[in-house]
Amino acid sequence: MSRALPGDLRLETALGDLQGQIYRALRDMALDGRLAPGSVLPSTRNLARALGVARSTVVEALERLKAEGYLETRAGAAARIALIRPGQEIGAAPSPTLVRKPAAWPLLPLTPGVPDVQAFPSEVFARHLSAAGRRLSPTDLAFCPPEGHAPLRAAIARHLAASRGVLAEPDQVLILPSAGAGMALFAALCLKGHDRVWVEEPGYLSGPAIFGAQGAEVVAVPCDAAGLDPDLAPHGPEPRLICISPSHQFPTGATLSLDRRLGLLDLARRTGALILEDDYDSEFPLGERVLPALQSIDRSGSVVYLGTFSKVLAPSLRLAFAIAPFNLVEKARAHLALTHAGPAVVLQAALAEFINEGRLRAHIRRMAPLYAVRMMALRQALAEAAPSDLIPPPPHGGLQLAVSFCDQTRDDQLAARLMQEKGFGVRAFSDFHQGHPRRGLVFGTASATDDVARQAARAFTEISNRLTRRASP
Amino acid sequence: MSRALPGDLRLETALGDLQGQIYRALRDMALDGRLAPGSVLPSTRNLARALGVARSTVVEALERLKAEGYLETRAGAAARIALIRPGQEIGAAPSPTLVRKPAAWPLLPLTPGVPDVQAFPSEVFARHLSAAGRRLSPTDLAFCPPEGHAPLRAAIARHLAASRGVLAEPDQVLILPSAGAGMALFAALCLKGHDRVWVEEPGYLSGPAIFGAQGAEVVAVPCDAAGLDPDLAPHGPEPRLICISPSHQFPTGATLSLDRRLGLLDLARRTGALILEDDYDSEFPLGERVLPALQSIDRSGSVVYLGTFSKVLAPSLRLAFAIAPFNLVEKARAHLALTHAGPAVVLQAALAEFINEGRLRAHIRRMAPLYAVRMMALRQALAEAAPSDLIPPPPHGGLQLAVSFCDQTRDDQLAARLMQEKGFGVRAFSDFHQGHPRRGLVFGTASATDDVARQAARAFTEISNRLTRRASP
Repeated sequence: MSRALPGDLRLETALGDLQGQIYRALRDMALDGRLAPGSVLPSTRNLARALGVARSTVVEALERLKAEGYLETRAGAAARIALIRPGQEIGAAPSPTLVRKPAAWPLLPLTPGVPDVQAFPSEVFARHLSAAGRRLSPTDLAFCPPEGHAPLRAAIARHLAASRGVLAEPDQVLILPSAGAGMALFAALCLKGHDRVWVEEPGYLSGPAIFGAQGAEVVAVPCDAAGLDPDLAPHGPEPRLICISPSHQFPTGATLSLDRRLGLLDLARRTGALILEDDYDSEFPLGERVLPALQSIDRSGSVVYLGTFSKVLAPSLRLAFAIAPFNLVEKARAHLALTHAGPAVVLQAALAEFINEGRLRAHIRRMAPLYAVRMMALRQALAEAAPSDLIPPPPHGGLQLAVSFCDQTRDDQLAARLMQEKGFGVRAFSDFHQGHPRRGLVFGTASATDDVARQAARAFTEISNRLTRRASP
Repeated sequence: MSRALPGDLRLETALGDLQGQIYRALRDMALDGRLAPGSVLPSTRNLARALGVARSTVVEALERLKAEGYLETRAGAAARIALIRPGQEIGAAPSPTLVRKPAAWPLLPLTPGVPDVQAFPSEVFARHLSAAGRRLSPTDLAFCPPEGHAPLRAAIARHLAASRGVLAEPDQVLILPSAGAGMALFAALCLKGHDRVWVEEPGYLSGPAIFGAQGAEVVAVPCDAAGLDPDLAPHGPEPRLICISPSHQFPTGATLSLDRRLGLLDLARRTGALILEDDYDSEFPLGERVLPALQSIDRSGSVVYLGTFSKVLAPSLRLAFAIAPFNLVEKARAHLALTHAGPAVVLQAALAEFINEGRLRAHIRRMAPLYAVRMMALRQALAEAAPSDLIPPPPHGGLQLAVSFCDQTRDDQLAARLMQEKGFGVRAFSDFHQGHPRRGLVFGTASATDDVARQAARAFTEISNRLTRRASP
């Protein structure tokens, strides 16, 4: 029966912890579909022989997989991979571990913030990595400029000018490992004492924590269909920093209106505030004309543009960048030089070539229509399955679909069940709120193929009905 | 005459700024020796034709190279690469740019902190990068654990147990882009208000700035031949954080005595202070038995061990790690999850395989005796050339040699001239002091081949004599 055991289960004896290796390998195969639900595993005796380990090692690994719900065993029968994928029957009850660490489940379909990494051009990128590794000069091996590798800075400046109307000299581009690192950087440069920072409500979760860690007074300003509404900001001192996602507000997807853009720029010019424009997934608009970046209409050097390759390529590359106003470049460079915590030069060099050879543009052109179709498919499926429960979201691009509820359905409970019972990485709207929670769900749409969309809509209706029944006995 | 033009001068027209590209390419070739001093360049006309650019573009690039001292021109003769390498005649006067940005000169011989990157196994590492890039699972593409890639954490724990007696579970290993990022991380976790931090005097320059940025009161505690001397710490509150380099104090090279190690551990246990042990280059001892890491004799969870691959492999890889006491691991992980600013998973996976295949160990075994010989060669050459000016340093390992002066020779002036006139990256001792400067020079020894050592000793004597004559007319 060893055909159920994929060829890529190999143990690295040198690494030790063989039981853990078996556990992790089988778990990952179950999660990413290399082992389909229902697959029959070889007997523990055969498995132990094939892997060259003691039978007890295999038994313990399988016990752990069973306890955590990855395996099913019936008396007298071989162990089978449990049904933990969406659209299947309910699998084994999830262990507390899974609930405590949702981060370990990034590949659940419909997880917000995760692009379709299966479409990432791994072969091409690996070739660029290899070429860059062979070609690095002694200088590039010995020295990592704190502001980033010059060819990548130039490549990004060119790419942005073409794709987003962002006006940037290569000298303004700072290479960072993440957009969050950019928020921390400019907070460190600009904030003093308990300076006030405006963040979006609902919004990106780590922002308030990053700014709070600098001692700032973080103020959550409510967003509506036109993005952050400055008129709803609480009274008090003017903000020193404003952190927004104007293209597709996270997670609502709203586009900041031109009116409010001009208003925020005017506020920044008058008060000397700095605007952090988090443009995390604007590469994927949904048909209609997208407003150019806020940075491109700033005439007073008040905007820092934050971009990332997490959404457009893959999160684990840890490559992002900031476009800083000229007057902040030198200060930023000096701050980055303190910890020298930027990405490896070899990685930066590989990405520069990847961009310069047109690979990034090609990938975006390939994925943008796919993502648009998936978003529409999910929207359609949800609207058809449960019309009365939903306020249909306005069309927008990006990789998230936020769905508000009219009724009192508990969104966190709904999201937890969609994850635990159905294997979807959907998040509750209230997770992204600091103060005034609205009800709803946030779906990642990059993984919403037709099948996934239909299954998700069914699962949503089923669980939603069950919760409603319980709520009204 | 185009033979003087190496084949690797290629322009990327797509990148624009052709003049800048020509300037940088020729400058880098001159700096890393691909264009030897005295090499004759083709005429501007021929160069322009060969590169397919306007002659004026070439002329302007060469003018800039000339102005900055990389090129020499004599009336009626072709331009030649200037003598900017050590052991040559004095080249053109350096431009102010060079003095303002010494960071752009990392490959000057004898620069402290830089290993012999020419010996870095680029081919092997590039193969690992490529293999890792092809092999990453969707999970590893989509998700970057804030604490680091599990296989690398395991590989580092095993490596350290064997090489440094450091006792670490993989769970305690946190992957970081730099030791500085580790200092910033634990400062953020531990310091409140104006908590006091002890740093070494002289010492690693960025430390005080990193801790100061957290609002700490940074106290420089003098070091002698047995390392940091707690008895010389100013009175006042106990330190909350103690940042030291016990194996080879940077830059003096002193090894912290066992006595003081036990004293510091006792202080930490009594007061709850945290010790950051910066073990930046202990892979390269000089023959004698090295004291095991402070972390390995800590019984109260008071020590964070910071290691880096900057010195043992190459600085631009931006790979380092911390071994945290168990009680800090979860806090550290949560802090790292805020900005997600760790190294790319593909790079971590490549390094894990590099370590697991024994490549790291092989590289250390190859380099350690080379580095030992180079350090001794430099020490010998300096002692012979200028015995009366020097207090001969005690033997120690690592990649730096610190030389104290008996007389009043201005070390910053001496270091500046060794860099500007002779092309050595030697640093002044007083650069690493906050309060009580001692006189001396810090030599990076990784690049001190016999030739370089002899040339450096000659250059040192010449400039030192010249400065002394001026000082005593």
